[in-house]
Amino acid sequence: MSIEDLKALMGQMQGSVPEGPDRIQAFREVYDGLSMMFPFPDDGTLRAAQEGGVPGAWIEAPGAERSGAMLYLHGGGYALGSVLSHKELVYRLSAASRRPGFLVDYRRAPENPFPAALDDATAAYQGLLGSGLQPKQITILGDSAGGGLTMATLLALRQKNIPLPGSAVCLSPWADLTLSGKAHETREARDPIVRREDLLGWVKAYAGQEKPGNPLLSPVFGDLSGLPPVLIQVGTEETLYDDACMLAAGLAKGEGTYTFEAWPGMTHVFQQFSGMVPEGLTAIEHIGAFINAHGP
Amino acid sequence: MSIEDLKALMGQMQGSVPEGPDRIQAFREVYDGLSMMFPFPDDGTLRAAQEGGVPGAWIEAPGAERSGAMLYLHGGGYALGSVLSHKELVYRLSAASRRPGFLVDYRRAPENPFPAALDDATAAYQGLLGSGLQPKQITILGDSAGGGLTMATLLALRQKNIPLPGSAVCLSPWADLTLSGKAHETREARDPIVRREDLLGWVKAYAGQEKPGNPLLSPVFGDLSGLPPVLIQVGTEETLYDDACMLAAGLAKGEGTYTFEAWPGMTHVFQQFSGMVPEGLTAIEHIGAFINAHGP
Repeated sequence: MSIEDLKALMGQMQGSVPEGPDRIQAFREVYDGLSMMFPFPDDGTLRAAQEGGVPGAWIEAPGAERSGAMLYLHGGGYALGSVLSHKELVYRLSAASRRPGFLVDYRRAPENPFPAALDDATAAYQGLLGSGLQPKQITILGDSAGGGLTMATLLALRQKNIPLPGSAVCLSPWADLTLSGKAHETREARDPIVRREDLLGWVKAYAGQEKPGNPLLSPVFGDLSGLPPVLIQVGTEETLYDDACMLAAGLAKGEGTYTFEAWPGMTHVFQQFSGMVPEGLTAIEHIGAFINAHGP
Repeated sequence: MSIEDLKALMGQMQGSVPEGPDRIQAFREVYDGLSMMFPFPDDGTLRAAQEGGVPGAWIEAPGAERSGAMLYLHGGGYALGSVLSHKELVYRLSAASRRPGFLVDYRRAPENPFPAALDDATAAYQGLLGSGLQPKQITILGDSAGGGLTMATLLALRQKNIPLPGSAVCLSPWADLTLSGKAHETREARDPIVRREDLLGWVKAYAGQEKPGNPLLSPVFGDLSGLPPVLIQVGTEETLYDDACMLAAGLAKGEGTYTFEAWPGMTHVFQQFSGMVPEGLTAIEHIGAFINAHGP
């Protein structure tokens, strides 16, 4: 399957979600249904668990024997996504990094607005520390809203003087809930997945009474100095392209060590479709190499 | 050899160049002498040539059969460096990208101050176009001052309405001749190669009567929008780290497609020492993949 086929498929999926007040609920089902397209491999293990009181699943591919772990924050606009939708992606990341991953089932909006997801991410990280892992052995990573949440979690941990993880990875991060990026207009026609109307609905659902420009919701506006090495991957065909660029610019300003990869022709979280687009596999290999370069 | 061994070696080399008015001349000899450490491989071809009236050498590794070419601008503070010092690096880049490379022997400072090097780079690029290559088939790349010159050449070409190349690559670019980056202080103790005193001497030699902040000398201050995809590689142990970050931030602001790779523990233009540090080989493989992803 080519990326063009995938774009067409994504557009169809988008269009199949009915508009109206029940759109979030319907979208959740469609998004989780995606998992049928990429079943969890037989040689993987998936174990429901809690870390720091937060539910989720430990996911492991064969050969995940390095000392360390990933804390994975799934995407879906803070409103969609689950262990179901992201388990195969975390399996692939486990295979590439040779580490197990805890896929966090954080509380979602609108039922649980900010700071529920952030509190859960922070608590799960502290749970990993409590289980004996050293900060440097942990990588926090996530896609889309989970990528923004990854950066917000780093800011929250720094604020609370909790030792930071060894590295972080953001896949197509949604890191600006004010939607200030020009790409929302300039790349709209090229992005079959992320629609401005959906984003606006998710902002409303997640931000609640909080200002969307708060760096804990929109880390692009935060002070990104003093953070661990961060890898950012983004497709060039994304309305969220600027979110990734703004994060990179903030990390650069803060003299951070970061890697920014713009993947030509690729769409939002293309790594989730690695079974279909080979670029996703290569990107996941890069993530594995990055995690191992910055971890024990 | 580990990167620590290389750092020690580089520090020795630095220290072996006598201070004083003849330092540039002595440094040229030491820098060219580096080539003894990495001889040109027997299976490579090197042919002296002119492109657009500018002297240089066509360099090719076996299997360089893709349609396209690299235009390589060597580093050395606009005052040092030559075909001698960089021929093996261009051979490795030719092997990785499977394209021939024209290594430009541009006029150097202080004998030929700004805009001599820039004029030569632009003329050589036009020479390639005149020989029948399409712009998209060409990648301009360079290290250190050659990396800054790569970006300056893109700005000059855009200014003159000459079609831009398909991609560009900067290795440890020196892109801010005002030396405004904090890394000049914060990373000084970690960088055995690039000294502030040397840089100041090279600025004086190259800038001549021109302001060092002119974007054609310091492209970090230029408008970096509308440029082709750019790959930037930098080591974290570099006083020029911020130059790379500022370029990336400018490309991000201009909505450009770019890839930024910060290589942990690596020193200035570590790719030139690929025979000694394996990270250099991997970085060169990344460059080859980047060029091919954005070229025919």
